[in-house]
Amino acid sequence: GWARAVRGLLLDVSGVLYDSGADGGVPIAGSAEAVRRIKASGLKLQLCTNETQATRENFVRKLRALGFDVSVAEVTAPAPAACRLLRERGLRPHLLVHDDLIPEFAEVDKTNPNCVVLGDAAENFTYANLNEAFRLLIGMEKPVLISLGKGRYYKETDGLKLDVGAYMKALEYACDVQAEVVGKPAKTFFESALAELGVPAEQAIMIGDDIVSDVGGAQQCGMRALQVRTGKYRPSDENHPQVKPDAYVNNLAEAVDIILQHL
Amino acid sequence: GWARAVRGLLLDVSGVLYDSGADGGVPIAGSAEAVRRIKASGLKLQLCTNETQATRENFVRKLRALGFDVSVAEVTAPAPAACRLLRERGLRPHLLVHDDLIPEFAEVDKTNPNCVVLGDAAENFTYANLNEAFRLLIGMEKPVLISLGKGRYYKETDGLKLDVGAYMKALEYACDVQAEVVGKPAKTFFESALAELGVPAEQAIMIGDDIVSDVGGAQQCGMRALQVRTGKYRPSDENHPQVKPDAYVNNLAEAVDIILQHL
Repeated sequence: GWARAVRGLLLDVSGVLYDSGADGGVPIAGSAEAVRRIKASGLKLQLCTNETQATRENFVRKLRALGFDVSVAEVTAPAPAACRLLRERGLRPHLLVHDDLIPEFAEVDKTNPNCVVLGDAAENFTYANLNEAFRLLIGMEKPVLISLGKGRYYKETDGLKLDVGAYMKALEYACDVQAEVVGKPAKTFFESALAELGVPAEQAIMIGDDIVSDVGGAQQCGMRALQVRTGKYRPSDENHPQVKPDAYVNNLAEAVDIILQHL
Repeated sequence: GWARAVRGLLLDVSGVLYDSGADGGVPIAGSAEAVRRIKASGLKLQLCTNETQATRENFVRKLRALGFDVSVAEVTAPAPAACRLLRERGLRPHLLVHDDLIPEFAEVDKTNPNCVVLGDAAENFTYANLNEAFRLLIGMEKPVLISLGKGRYYKETDGLKLDVGAYMKALEYACDVQAEVVGKPAKTFFESALAELGVPAEQAIMIGDDIVSDVGGAQQCGMRALQVRTGKYRPSDENHPQVKPDAYVNNLAEAVDIILQHL
């Protein structure tokens, strides 16, 4: 029954459309064709990603080069959401992010920082850089730490990689603060993605490879959620103590097959 | 009343005897003289440190150069305690530690690692090195993570520095494991230090600058504990929700003044 009355899909990207990597990554078999079939069916589609290693423009360029028919407007990502939050609250960030993400913050005042924004900085997570972020936070009367997602790790073509959540925990512990997460699994982030999708939660399905961030987060917003057995999926996810997807599918192509049969 | 019936002192080192730093550090005023007065008084003395940036031999060499009359036998430090634990349990470590600590593990079998040992690796905490430790752990059926202390940060001559505890939290979160801490505030570590001091807990006082690791840890072993207002001490420590020292002192010299008056 999970496939009935669907009008739109939110898709995680890394591990669902492709496996990322230094080489630009490789598409997951059948996923580019699945995206085309979704669009041809009239279903609405929005990519809902915690990707913070590139601007949305460059991210979409990469996905198009891999054969995915997607546009910038179809991407909901943490950096633009963080920029809105910074503006609303008059926050001036110190950025500890990937070099390629910095242009997303071009319009934001970064002088005399009164908060730290943490992204998936990868090689920029040096001891010196993390220590600089730590010193700024510990020097604030009320430290504000904003984390672009809180993923534990992700899978690249050459293996698993530590994600931003690990470094968020390091700074939370060192500074005795609680980070504010902008990105999955935050409810406000899924709500933004649904607004951009233009479909209410009850008529949308989230498809992802992360049992907590994708599946658990979407279900808490009243959506159905599927876990694919691609990307960082591990068989032990199926025994997760808190989260149970509405269904498992082998990959995006299989999910789309089933959903289209029920239209 | 806190200064009565004392037969031995456990002293934290960084922030109590000296402030560490790339330049070798600088002694805290009056501390070298205080160590001499402790020894002249007949009180027993043991340094109880979470220092893991050097072998005990080099650590003592540095302290002697700064004017402290101390010997290797008077130092209780995490690395030798970790070596005992590794031997007892047949564990073969992958080391993510400071280069200068590696000789402490010379006798330990490090082939085909079945655990990760984490120390205050400082500049060695690169993304690549942390990711390597993460991959080893996540690949183990039952990951074993041993952390040499769990300090949040410490003070060097050029400012505050992130300590091993922050990186321990990062790996705990990424791998969904709980680290085993060897060092303060672990009870077994204080018990080793007391055994080396040769004085029962009720007759010993711990003196440190860390409200949780030094003061809280020692009190849980039945010792009295003082917090000095040197090193990483911050006024907000005096409002700590869980831990209250038996007394505050401005520095080690003041503590020793008071204790010697009560002998």
